[in-house]
Amino acid sequence: MEKPVNLAEKLATFDEKWSPRTVATFNGNDVMVVKVQGAFNWHAHADTDDLFLVLRGQIDIRLRDRTVTLDAGEMFVVPKGVEHCPYARDEAHLLLIEPSGTPNTGDPATAAARKVI
Amino acid sequence: MEKPVNLAEKLATFDEKWSPRTVATFNGNDVMVVKVQGAFNWHAHADTDDLFLVLRGQIDIRLRDRTVTLDAGEMFVVPKGVEHCPYARDEAHLLLIEPSGTPNTGDPATAAARKVI
Repeated sequence: MEKPVNLAEKLATFDEKWSPRTVATFNGNDVMVVKVQGAFNWHAHADTDDLFLVLRGQIDIRLRDRTVTLDAGEMFVVPKGVEHCPYARDEAHLLLIEPSGTPNTGDPATAAARKVI
Repeated sequence: MEKPVNLAEKLATFDEKWSPRTVATFNGNDVMVVKVQGAFNWHAHADTDDLFLVLRGQIDIRLRDRTVTLDAGEMFVVPKGVEHCPYARDEAHLLLIEPSGTPNTGDPATAAARKVI
């Protein structure tokens, strides 16, 4: 049985950036929290949409034709196949949902290992 | 292309309780916001887990063997097939994720119509 999850408490357990932690699963998806700062790499996910919800701070999701800025309480879904580059000037905290096993960098060779907390 | 979604702004557009509004889609799932107050019906979803994230206020998710209390910033996944009855003493605002077409009551005959905002 799943347990209730306090997102802030989970985020307080680590400081590493760009290293998502799985806090729940939902129909084969990982529900993850992640701390970010600076620019990630440009990438796309060929087989899945990519859901971002900002819990704290602000992020830009750079797309090839525009930039989407998200503050806390705002979300955005990057459609599958669309190149994107997340960027945070200051530390920001996000909730992410992706099918379990999706490489966060778009490439299994460089992806962060799945970590469940 | 999906648009950025401000959850509080979406919630400010309606007052109806227990009537989820779809604010984004993700791999065939509806990402919904809903206002709740009082007790919903006991139900289960045979084919899908049910993700609850509290955005404001507090809810109880009554299960047959215990009650899970969630405050803002807390989430819970009701596994598929598990009977549950959401309850909110005072008005609470939630984010829900379910496959598009999932009846919110567990029964298509009594489910709220899908509303996209």
